[in-house]
Amino acid sequence: MYTNGTHKPNETQLIPYASRLKEGRALAQDVWSIYNAANLPPDCINLGQGYMNFAPPVWIREAATEALKQVATNHYSHPKGRLRLRHAIKDFYGPQLGRDLDVETEILVTSGANEGEYSVFVAFLEPGDEVIMFEPFFDQYLASITFNSGVPIYVPLHPLTDKDKPTSNDWVIDFDELRRRAITPRTKMIIVNTPHNPVGKVFTREELEKIADLAKEHNLLVMADEVYDSLVFDGKEHVRIATLPGMWERTVTVGSAGKLFAATGWRVGWLIGPSYIIYPTLAATTRIVFCSNSPLQEASAVGLEQARERGFVDQQRREYEERRAILTEGFDRLGMKYTMPEGSYFVLLDVSRLQWPDDYPFPQSVMGRGRDFMACWFIAMEIGVSSIPVSEFYCEEHCIIGENYARFAFCKDADTLKRAVERLQELAKFLKN
Amino acid sequence: MYTNGTHKPNETQLIPYASRLKEGRALAQDVWSIYNAANLPPDCINLGQGYMNFAPPVWIREAATEALKQVATNHYSHPKGRLRLRHAIKDFYGPQLGRDLDVETEILVTSGANEGEYSVFVAFLEPGDEVIMFEPFFDQYLASITFNSGVPIYVPLHPLTDKDKPTSNDWVIDFDELRRRAITPRTKMIIVNTPHNPVGKVFTREELEKIADLAKEHNLLVMADEVYDSLVFDGKEHVRIATLPGMWERTVTVGSAGKLFAATGWRVGWLIGPSYIIYPTLAATTRIVFCSNSPLQEASAVGLEQARERGFVDQQRREYEERRAILTEGFDRLGMKYTMPEGSYFVLLDVSRLQWPDDYPFPQSVMGRGRDFMACWFIAMEIGVSSIPVSEFYCEEHCIIGENYARFAFCKDADTLKRAVERLQELAKFLKN
Repeated sequence: MYTNGTHKPNETQLIPYASRLKEGRALAQDVWSIYNAANLPPDCINLGQGYMNFAPPVWIREAATEALKQVATNHYSHPKGRLRLRHAIKDFYGPQLGRDLDVETEILVTSGANEGEYSVFVAFLEPGDEVIMFEPFFDQYLASITFNSGVPIYVPLHPLTDKDKPTSNDWVIDFDELRRRAITPRTKMIIVNTPHNPVGKVFTREELEKIADLAKEHNLLVMADEVYDSLVFDGKEHVRIATLPGMWERTVTVGSAGKLFAATGWRVGWLIGPSYIIYPTLAATTRIVFCSNSPLQEASAVGLEQARERGFVDQQRREYEERRAILTEGFDRLGMKYTMPEGSYFVLLDVSRLQWPDDYPFPQSVMGRGRDFMACWFIAMEIGVSSIPVSEFYCEEHCIIGENYARFAFCKDADTLKRAVERLQELAKFLKN
Repeated sequence: MYTNGTHKPNETQLIPYASRLKEGRALAQDVWSIYNAANLPPDCINLGQGYMNFAPPVWIREAATEALKQVATNHYSHPKGRLRLRHAIKDFYGPQLGRDLDVETEILVTSGANEGEYSVFVAFLEPGDEVIMFEPFFDQYLASITFNSGVPIYVPLHPLTDKDKPTSNDWVIDFDELRRRAITPRTKMIIVNTPHNPVGKVFTREELEKIADLAKEHNLLVMADEVYDSLVFDGKEHVRIATLPGMWERTVTVGSAGKLFAATGWRVGWLIGPSYIIYPTLAATTRIVFCSNSPLQEASAVGLEQARERGFVDQQRREYEERRAILTEGFDRLGMKYTMPEGSYFVLLDVSRLQWPDDYPFPQSVMGRGRDFMACWFIAMEIGVSSIPVSEFYCEEHCIIGENYARFAFCKDADTLKRAVERLQELAKFLKN
């Protein structure tokens, strides 16, 4: 993620902006710009942004090259997505969802999962409709909701801070808080991001059942953001909320070729759900982008078609488990607490024990923000490893929870992670007891 | 363009749609679905939809293959667009606009021109803001405006029907109508599509000066949709409204790699304008799609970098002039009137003399629509050449103007066009005098 907070225009503004830009932090300087490589030491190791420093599998890239050689795969696709990709999605996800998916009415390819989610908001949000999201939240949700006249409602995941070796399962929902303080007659949607960015939490069946009960009781649309579904570790069960009783009818499940195939720049994602959800969302995406790019859709279809027989997903998961181990063992060696993620490719490091000189020269963009903003800046400048402050992913009321954490992404090759871990050992001298 | 009007959901709709979908024909069955290949004879020659039946240039596709081989060009780009592409846009368009463009603040890459235009509406439209468009209009504008709470205002181009051999220059603006009946205190924007889809009109300097005067007088934002800018024929001057005095400050110019490089499925477009327009539009596109696909951005950069030295644009224009000649000579031979386009790749055929049997079995989707809907259906079914009825691109009040025309796209190879022309000769027996 990047800023739009740099390069503010300085000429006369003849035409006023839409007021929807005043909400959802749409024009604020965000963490992606503050902790951007351009602002950090040139040799800083980037564990901030969640993209890989390796390419998608060769065999999938070769499929893209093949698509580029043809005529039709260089031109408009159907706004629903290329038929071959929709069939591949049906075959890949159908068994996991326990359904014989209809490629014409229950699957929609979008220009990245992000644009798919935006399209759902366009299709369903009325002015004042409330959307519940768990904190810390994926920051794109915020303006996507407010741009479409929705109101974000925040429910924090609470870390069990007394645990010695916490896992992402120790970030818990206070269901009383969710039911009594968050849900109102205006609640329209709830976003369930599992595996969760940035906590790495894989929601348990029991948690999802409770959320499902609330969704049914209050007639909520559930956006199941499962873009990290291929990255669930240690044999942990990944439950899809759409498979719970009565939930297919009110759930749209979101997937991503970028996350699945290490191709974040391909901008191919998909939505799966009942036809009455897909139908208006198709109308939205058709107007927003018309269709998604064709050659990389075709390659993504090949990826899904062959992933199983090649054992791709299992092998990739093992590689990510190794990467996670490199980073977490580095934190163990250092004696710093962190949240062991059960899924996704993020580790939250507890930076509450980190102490920097009182007169450390922090830039203006970091001053006055949470303590985690200073920690991430300090680690990047002094140690040469970048990360992202987690309080950014909270509303103002709750950001105190996030101030103890820095998010490190481990979607990087093992050598890079090892180098980062060596550098991070230098933090020892800045730790309070 | 395709439908979302097929496959209406038939299960219970648990969650209501947003009311914004009720406007802008968002859920209506559109022409792209009615005249879709699936509904027409299997060997029907498709001159309906505006995509090429040939691939992008080999050297540009090779650049895409090279990009796929690297790491960074498979991952997120900056939401502003890849820096190399922004520099290529600066070098290609800067001289045409007479400006030293700032790649950080005055250029924005989008997921197709369509998504760029959508983002401008997100960034600027307040509820009730009026947007003027000339009819016939590119149908994507409509819902893109209403989804963002804007109000479309229609101003028809008037065909000078008494001309024996009309050109697209004979579709004229009634400036009195524009000034007195269309512009109100709520007018926020005006869309100027030149070269124009579907008329092929290349707006004259004089026309653009008059529009510019109105825009300055009423403080309007001008969206200059110039996606067909590489297809201006017969040495006709293509004036960019952004170059007129006082107009850079209020104009956003829209371009398209898909149109320029015969790559409609690549979904790479761009906006050029003053920083106060690009700045909020960047905020919008960042939330909508986050960024555009990276490999095809990189290839588009190579396309722009090398287009001039390879003489690509001139050669392509000559090829399109030949294609236009094949189609229009076919209409001449047939003795049917049409509008000779000065730009774009569309010819409007005057179908007012076409007569079909009274009992011809038109489908339900065509009945009760304009006469042109029947003409296009009849031509596709009986002659085997598909086209698009032009009244679709008018508001209800003005659609009578469009009913005389069918739009034929000539972005097809010469052999296909020759076969189409041979078939079209069969229309002779259905012409009234």
